Amino acid sequence: MERTLISKIQQKDGQNVLIKGRILNVRSLGNIIFLVIQDYTGIIQTVFEKNAEVKMGETVAVKGLVKKEPRAKGGYELQGEKLEIISPITEDLPFDLARNELNLNINTLLDQRALSLRHPKVQAIFKLYDILLKSYETVMREENFTEIKTPKILGSATEGGANFFKVKYFEKEATLAQSPQFYKQIMVGVFERVFEIGSAFRAEPHFTTRHVNEYISLDAEMGFIQDYSDVIQMLNKVIKKMFELLEKEGQPYLEMYKIKISEVPEEIPCVKLAEIKKIIKKEYGYAIPEETDIDPKGESLAGKYAKEKFNSDFIFITHYPWSDRPFYTMPSSENSRETYGFDLLFKGLEIATGSQRIHTYKQLMENMRKKKVKPAGMEFYLETFKYAMPPHGGWAIGSERVIQQILELGSVKEAILFPRDVKRLMP
Amino acid sequence: MERTLISKIQQKDGQNVLIKGRILNVRSLGNIIFLVIQDYTGIIQTVFEKNAEVKMGETVAVKGLVKKEPRAKGGYELQGEKLEIISPITEDLPFDLARNELNLNINTLLDQRALSLRHPKVQAIFKLYDILLKSYETVMREENFTEIKTPKILGSATEGGANFFKVKYFEKEATLAQSPQFYKQIMVGVFERVFEIGSAFRAEPHFTTRHVNEYISLDAEMGFIQDYSDVIQMLNKVIKKMFELLEKEGQPYLEMYKIKISEVPEEIPCVKLAEIKKIIKKEYGYAIPEETDIDPKGESLAGKYAKEKFNSDFIFITHYPWSDRPFYTMPSSENSRETYGFDLLFKGLEIATGSQRIHTYKQLMENMRKKKVKPAGMEFYLETFKYAMPPHGGWAIGSERVIQQILELGSVKEAILFPRDVKRLMP
Repeated sequence: MERTLISKIQQKDGQNVLIKGRILNVRSLGNIIFLVIQDYTGIIQTVFEKNAEVKMGETVAVKGLVKKEPRAKGGYELQGEKLEIISPITEDLPFDLARNELNLNINTLLDQRALSLRHPKVQAIFKLYDILLKSYETVMREENFTEIKTPKILGSATEGGANFFKVKYFEKEATLAQSPQFYKQIMVGVFERVFEIGSAFRAEPHFTTRHVNEYISLDAEMGFIQDYSDVIQMLNKVIKKMFELLEKEGQPYLEMYKIKISEVPEEIPCVKLAEIKKIIKKEYGYAIPEETDIDPKGESLAGKYAKEKFNSDFIFITHYPWSDRPFYTMPSSENSRETYGFDLLFKGLEIATGSQRIHTYKQLMENMRKKKVKPAGMEFYLETFKYAMPPHGGWAIGSERVIQQILELGSVKEAILFPRDVKRLMP
Repeated sequence: MERTLISKIQQKDGQNVLIKGRILNVRSLGNIIFLVIQDYTGIIQTVFEKNAEVKMGETVAVKGLVKKEPRAKGGYELQGEKLEIISPITEDLPFDLARNELNLNINTLLDQRALSLRHPKVQAIFKLYDILLKSYETVMREENFTEIKTPKILGSATEGGANFFKVKYFEKEATLAQSPQFYKQIMVGVFERVFEIGSAFRAEPHFTTRHVNEYISLDAEMGFIQDYSDVIQMLNKVIKKMFELLEKEGQPYLEMYKIKISEVPEEIPCVKLAEIKKIIKKEYGYAIPEETDIDPKGESLAGKYAKEKFNSDFIFITHYPWSDRPFYTMPSSENSRETYGFDLLFKGLEIATGSQRIHTYKQLMENMRKKKVKPAGMEFYLETFKYAMPPHGGWAIGSERVIQQILELGSVKEAILFPRDVKRLMP
């Protein structure tokens, strides 16, 4: 008998079918056993009228009769006739996966990842993440960006050189890419518009709910811009389309978290960093420390302001200081202490960073001298600017932070299948 | 005046437009200058009637009149009126990008990557690669696989432990992932069907035209299979759909290489390794050395045989020896010296490898003991098999090799934007 996928059950009303999947739940009611079974297309309730010898979490093949059942989710259930255990549980589960809420502390959640991921609410996070990836791929192609893949093992440290992981590369020392920055800029000279979905590695010894040491960065770079606002507009458009697709295809997962996905404004409000600092001081009485551009509390209050003033979960903060931004960031032509660099905050957390870049060799070298950045090891990148690079800019979106903020998860680590932090290299 | 994209030029017949792009070619004919200009949507010829002071490779803005011109590609040309150089070339190009063929040796081609990539025939490789990525994403989603991203920094070496790059991870030593093998198998226990597009790292000191040390692997893993042939059938289907999409959307790039893309059979021929060895000996008089499963010459002859006997550019070689395949590969139940592991060859080169995996803890531990593989560091993976893993299998496709073989490039490095080999960490 051929396997019927659970999503096709309703087309088989009154017929005998064979389904295969994992048991999400077992409930007994007198002589009746209810099994909730999941395959890669859906979930169905199966009823056995005598005792079925089976445990929560086992993988099974069930033969049974498809019956209308208005009280069942989806309107159908399976009247079980034969149950075969395909693969048994040979050791007790360390926690109860049938609970509505797992309620594990973050360490257990991550230590027992192979099992905690099987919980429907944890699954939902990564179903939504799947849609996020799909939406970025789709939207970037609609905007005529070419997908690229650039190396993650680098011959030299980029962007100043701090916080790089070192790799032993045969007889040489190499580093892991913090971002595809140099490569995506070079590729603007080839395809004008490029995007990349790739691993990024940061050797930052952070212990926060918003940092990890390895993540997936959604990068883009585009040429022939007028100024940084073209980049902001494109990012605005991309995020808007992505959220629309997430809302459309992610409903069942959003509902499990009782989340109504944020509406992305046609024009996300833009405020200069210097301005938002004043506003935060005035509106909320909080002075952002001098030694930082903006701190987490400042970001959170900027998010609060965007909500209160513009009814927006999003806000662009622009004109980050020259001293805080990497050497390739275009300095402001009105104020040399500022740049055309920006961040995008979502519910008070930075989810993307971007800027217009310097596109002439002369200005790039000048800016490096001022910033005391040595060109050694970056020649291949710098030389490119002798060959007619158009004005350009781009962004990097922290993919997992977007999901963290949509679902309002306590830590970005919950939005990563197998996260890496200072203490965590396993699983 | 707003920019008109080159792909929209034909809608502007008889109108004045502004285009922006890069000059691919400059030709003078008496007082007339022909400029070929490229933007991210297309290419157009622009004619100036007086001398235009502009160099090949510069980025420009051109105002002009759109005119029908049957001799021009696309049927239209631009009668140039005003030309502005957006960004100049400030140093002579190291080679002539206007030639039909670059004809650079591989080292120059790769050393000067930022510029060689601008050549239309090199661009074509990566336009095709973009379509390849899109086709994998699309087809895998059609088959209900969930896209996942798994860590590339690992706490322990997988798959036996050889040929790993080492990373200094804070106070610990870590390794770079050779494949997402353990993680994608774990994820079968969560989503049943998963795929990943990610970086893979191999510290193999190879100097060949088919190896690099970093590449993009197109992985998949699927549960509830009957046996390895389910995996082969799915891979067959996926490759077939991918090639259909590549043919449909990649025509202009395939034409530049005068390539008619291979037809993928509904059923790619499958031959056991032991069988193909005999055939190669008999048909072509070549004895594959005893110490290898199959060598490059053997693969090439297997490809020749597939073409001659089945008129197929593809062939599955199955039942690789137990001694050559990793410990998680399902041994054959008929012959303990063989496994349910297979390779897919395309034009005589391995482009994918896969197998049915062992899915019970007991058999996995047994196989590890026989193979003398120590469980240390793999506990998180091995423990998973105590919790009802369904029968499963999967594959890894070397994405760049697919493009190498489609376009019949001399080296896989030509199909990678910035390749990494033993000697090459730059650009």
